[in-house]
Amino acid sequence: MGGLPVLKFDPLNIQKFSDEALKVIEFITNYYKNVQKYPVRSQVEPGFLQNVYPKTAPLQPTSLETILQEIQNDIIPGITHWQSPNFFAFFPATISNAAFHGEMLCTALNVVGFNWICSPAATELEMIVMDWLAKLFNLPQSFLFAGEGGGVIQGSTSEGLICVLSAARDKALKQFGEDAITKLVVYASDQTHFVVQKAAKLVGIPSKNFRVIPTSLSNQFAVTPKAVEVAVERDVESGLMPFFLCATVGATPSGSTDPIEGLGLLAQKYGLWFHIDAAYAGSALICPELRHYLIGTEHANSISMNLHKWFLTNLDCSGLWVKNRSDLLDTLSMTAEVMRNDASESKNVVDFMDWQIASGRRFRALKLWLVLRRYGVQNLMIHIRSDIELAKHLEALVKSDQRFEVVVPVKFSLVCFRLKPEKQQGEESLKELNWKLMEAVNSSGRAYMTHAVLGDIFVIRCAIGTSLTEEKHVNGLWELIQEKTQLVLKERLVMGN
Amino acid sequence: MGGLPVLKFDPLNIQKFSDEALKVIEFITNYYKNVQKYPVRSQVEPGFLQNVYPKTAPLQPTSLETILQEIQNDIIPGITHWQSPNFFAFFPATISNAAFHGEMLCTALNVVGFNWICSPAATELEMIVMDWLAKLFNLPQSFLFAGEGGGVIQGSTSEGLICVLSAARDKALKQFGEDAITKLVVYASDQTHFVVQKAAKLVGIPSKNFRVIPTSLSNQFAVTPKAVEVAVERDVESGLMPFFLCATVGATPSGSTDPIEGLGLLAQKYGLWFHIDAAYAGSALICPELRHYLIGTEHANSISMNLHKWFLTNLDCSGLWVKNRSDLLDTLSMTAEVMRNDASESKNVVDFMDWQIASGRRFRALKLWLVLRRYGVQNLMIHIRSDIELAKHLEALVKSDQRFEVVVPVKFSLVCFRLKPEKQQGEESLKELNWKLMEAVNSSGRAYMTHAVLGDIFVIRCAIGTSLTEEKHVNGLWELIQEKTQLVLKERLVMGN
Repeated sequence: MGGLPVLKFDPLNIQKFSDEALKVIEFITNYYKNVQKYPVRSQVEPGFLQNVYPKTAPLQPTSLETILQEIQNDIIPGITHWQSPNFFAFFPATISNAAFHGEMLCTALNVVGFNWICSPAATELEMIVMDWLAKLFNLPQSFLFAGEGGGVIQGSTSEGLICVLSAARDKALKQFGEDAITKLVVYASDQTHFVVQKAAKLVGIPSKNFRVIPTSLSNQFAVTPKAVEVAVERDVESGLMPFFLCATVGATPSGSTDPIEGLGLLAQKYGLWFHIDAAYAGSALICPELRHYLIGTEHANSISMNLHKWFLTNLDCSGLWVKNRSDLLDTLSMTAEVMRNDASESKNVVDFMDWQIASGRRFRALKLWLVLRRYGVQNLMIHIRSDIELAKHLEALVKSDQRFEVVVPVKFSLVCFRLKPEKQQGEESLKELNWKLMEAVNSSGRAYMTHAVLGDIFVIRCAIGTSLTEEKHVNGLWELIQEKTQLVLKERLVMGN
Repeated sequence: MGGLPVLKFDPLNIQKFSDEALKVIEFITNYYKNVQKYPVRSQVEPGFLQNVYPKTAPLQPTSLETILQEIQNDIIPGITHWQSPNFFAFFPATISNAAFHGEMLCTALNVVGFNWICSPAATELEMIVMDWLAKLFNLPQSFLFAGEGGGVIQGSTSEGLICVLSAARDKALKQFGEDAITKLVVYASDQTHFVVQKAAKLVGIPSKNFRVIPTSLSNQFAVTPKAVEVAVERDVESGLMPFFLCATVGATPSGSTDPIEGLGLLAQKYGLWFHIDAAYAGSALICPELRHYLIGTEHANSISMNLHKWFLTNLDCSGLWVKNRSDLLDTLSMTAEVMRNDASESKNVVDFMDWQIASGRRFRALKLWLVLRRYGVQNLMIHIRSDIELAKHLEALVKSDQRFEVVVPVKFSLVCFRLKPEKQQGEESLKELNWKLMEAVNSSGRAYMTHAVLGDIFVIRCAIGTSLTEEKHVNGLWELIQEKTQLVLKERLVMGN
């Protein structure tokens, strides 16, 4: 083979691997040391990078040192710092040393685990940890691999929803015929994350067949089985086919939790697939004192939670458990000759590509396993409980200031409150005032919170619990809120409102 | 807040971050140094881990050292080593130092970039690199952000397919009405990856409306526009509604490439959404001498390629480009109050959650950018070309042995061949013989190849190009194949076949 050119390029350079990685580790350590100093919400303007950056890819290589310098100078200012201890927006995306190690190992092995033979350890470790978690959450036995169910790691709640919605759809269509697809109806509450509606649309359910059941302050924004039943009955009467009900434990806007037992019985009565979306709050249910939120889960067909939110396993790691794995397999199982192998044909193994949208998949179980092994359930419970304590601490601070109102009692680590300086005031004016307050906090760069509208009440959402957040950061936030409150109230006075 | 317990648990421990990471880096370096010594395809039996591992999560923490030791002892034997230089199965999942750095940084920052404000740098850097790549592949101007299109990083081809299939579906339904969903028809060839069929099923297209157009050896397994047109015409006549055509550049079974220009014109004639799946071979098209495979792409609506296959960016990193981003947005754009922000409302920014299934997303652009910056296009072309050279080298070796046959001429880095010791022999008997040969190679642990059935021809597929594969490994593979060939031929003689 004398004609071949000498290979000049060595993309996976083992000799340099350790030294180079060390430089990146040093960069990351410095980042964490300094992250509190950066404005939490990025303060750049649209186009800040796009308008100044080269328009074509470089022909020549660049040194790692130069690149790291460029990340520091050009990229970091454009980062909204989700790892800042002063990040209180959306829900925190927690991380940990153990998860970081898991991610490094997953990246380095870079196995593509579509089926068992592609790396038996990747499949079996995932089955093991998903069973571990199912037991920690006290899920019914049927959700375990030893039962008829099992758990699988998805990239997102949305991907899991597409799997269960299409499985439920195909089950319904088998009964009613393919043409029935335009008559299938999904039920969820106004607190449900929009990804449920989006997933329903993606699997072909007409948008007009998505029912948003209203909730109210008087019921702490939980949906009532009665309200759902009224909607279901109305649809049945008009010749439609109810087939899917989604409940939420720890909704994004308010942290509300739906009554699982009541909804589950209702789902059973009408033959609906019952899914529980516990994206945010699910992780907390490893604590025995919180598990009551899942009472009634034996009536559910599936449950999902984003472990990458509160479970210290960085993005992405979303758990999905199903009661009958055959439901999933009936819709998702499909393969190619190139993947045919004795183990799969023996039916003695799990091929996780039959449990998800894609065929390829990363060895994400590794980081989940590392988090559980490295810290133990004991520490993970401390982690959850201390976040909830911090949220209750902030709730108490807010309550102690008569200008403020806590709109929904804190259940987990989300505090929904608003500034309400006078008793009689229109919602529109309060909304404007609270938006101003929130923006004053956020644009200061010293903290970042987001908002929600519950019914017609505009609330500031403070979601506590990044991996670096401590009591002093919550206290600092409250001081900042008070400082900005004085400012916006004074401004309002001047404006004559 | 005297009542709060002292926080005893510190999940993101900055003090220990560097020392601990270093231990993992050392582990990984050793793994790469030894990876050639491990059996490429794992030799464990089903249940090897599941049957022996604790059935419940540990309450107590475990040290990093113990865990790394356990990975070495318990996990590594269950790994099929995709990073072994002797891995020739499926398609390689390449990795590089630069991508590893990118993944570490992405993990550490752990930003959830659903919209621009969540980290402007994450969005803008993705726009920049996707435009860079579009230019490198010589995609028409319309696929750039400066045009009406743009590119986005997906987790997999499948996710991208769900996006474009649902966008195409909704476009068609807008025209024909919602009830038409059961009449929509998708066209692909028998070389198309099954994920297209699966994605079509997931978005609600009835399975009976998926047309698999046969290909043949005489046409090197490319589909002909004529054959597609006959199928389309037949469907139109029966009152169905053709709406989606998928072409492949570098198909998984054979490496075949469909005629883009002819299929594109056909799609235009019948108003079909035309998608190009270049999952495997796409990355190679940065080399000017290969770009001719994309001639006609101006007729396409979308094109996808798995950069995590051949572009040195480890799993997951799948590029999707569309000609009209408004098509995607019409179906995928949906948001919640909690995400409302001034930048999004100004419409001056891209919110990538409107380009994908999920709302959350990792900062994957970072690793793609690092690969491009760190190596430069120059080195990336060397990387692609040397893999192709190695494949042609193996093709020559196979051709030089009269007992073998190269079934499809090598275009990229996939060699499809078979053992065919006598001229007149039935396909069934050849299939059995080649399966035996392949299994003899694979079960030796010294290399791993997979197979395909092209028409009725069983071929062994040798996909070249892991990041560590060099000429000596290809030569070693060929020696191994010859050694095992002697064995299976001798065995056959003894068995009297």
